[in-house]
Amino acid sequence: MDNWKTLSTKQIFKHRYLTLEEDSVVTPKGRKIKYLCLGRGVSSVTVVPILKDGKIPLIYQFRYPHKKYFWELPGGRIDDGEKPAEGAERELKEEMQIEADKFIKLGSFATAPGIDGHVKYVFLAEGAKFVNGPRKNDHDDSEFIQEVKTFTFPEILKMVEKGEIQVSATLIAILLYRDYLNRKKK
Amino acid sequence: MDNWKTLSTKQIFKHRYLTLEEDSVVTPKGRKIKYLCLGRGVSSVTVVPILKDGKIPLIYQFRYPHKKYFWELPGGRIDDGEKPAEGAERELKEEMQIEADKFIKLGSFATAPGIDGHVKYVFLAEGAKFVNGPRKNDHDDSEFIQEVKTFTFPEILKMVEKGEIQVSATLIAILLYRDYLNRKKK
Repeated sequence: MDNWKTLSTKQIFKHRYLTLEEDSVVTPKGRKIKYLCLGRGVSSVTVVPILKDGKIPLIYQFRYPHKKYFWELPGGRIDDGEKPAEGAERELKEEMQIEADKFIKLGSFATAPGIDGHVKYVFLAEGAKFVNGPRKNDHDDSEFIQEVKTFTFPEILKMVEKGEIQVSATLIAILLYRDYLNRKKK
Repeated sequence: MDNWKTLSTKQIFKHRYLTLEEDSVVTPKGRKIKYLCLGRGVSSVTVVPILKDGKIPLIYQFRYPHKKYFWELPGGRIDDGEKPAEGAERELKEEMQIEADKFIKLGSFATAPGIDGHVKYVFLAEGAKFVNGPRKNDHDDSEFIQEVKTFTFPEILKMVEKGEIQVSATLIAILLYRDYLNRKKK
């Protein structure tokens, strides 16, 4: 790791959803520093599901820390032992009751590399369909989800342009999907 | 806030760089839940500096939680009492020793809305110039920065396509800037 040395790692906080660790680190210049890391090692997925009619479903979801609703693509954490594509498939099924024919990786990115080691994978889900009709509100986080609505991709790009899509992972997934389409056109 | 009621807020962890709070919340369906929020209220900026020759400087920066280097645009936290554009100007100066003629807001987004209320603002800095030659390594986080290099925008788009730019905020800033250029062309 390029002459950065970890002397020790100490867990300083633990909670159901996250952990905090403080490392003692020696930098390449020989300075000893403390480095705070959040929930290290946990990865997640965001999925762009393409329904058989070409539309894309978005979730209108209440996000308590912002006290408001956002339009978002489905996604969530990758479970222990799960491959990213398996996490994408499971999350899509759990969150939207959608199954798809094919999962294609569009890219990955670091969400907040200064504070955590989190990597988010973006998948395209082709041939997606609601398996029980649109999602029923019958599980734990259902109260956060106000509605699921389908949009054409040009409608979604318009929403991005108007600032109506404001969540990091959803924005990147849309933009990676646009680049994927442009590459296919060439 | 759409029938979501906060009953209480309890700070459960405090550190130099972040705080954790746990709220007791009543959802619209009347269920009482605990909600964990991270470093609420802190915002940040990412800046796309356009040098007089049209090139864009990127930082090659070591990110300890990932144990590797990333190419990134400059940016950082907005200080208390600072407006986002002021934060963009200060961060650009501090991090890269760059001053610019004009700061234009390109957009904003929520970085991780499920866990924090953080908003990241993206600014374009037109007429940017290094005020003391390229940045000297003379402040605290200098050891994280390996080099500063300038690229044309097509070179940067190529890096995005090849997966060589992998940080959320930098990716979104590049993509918002591309949309800004496309709108200007119309």
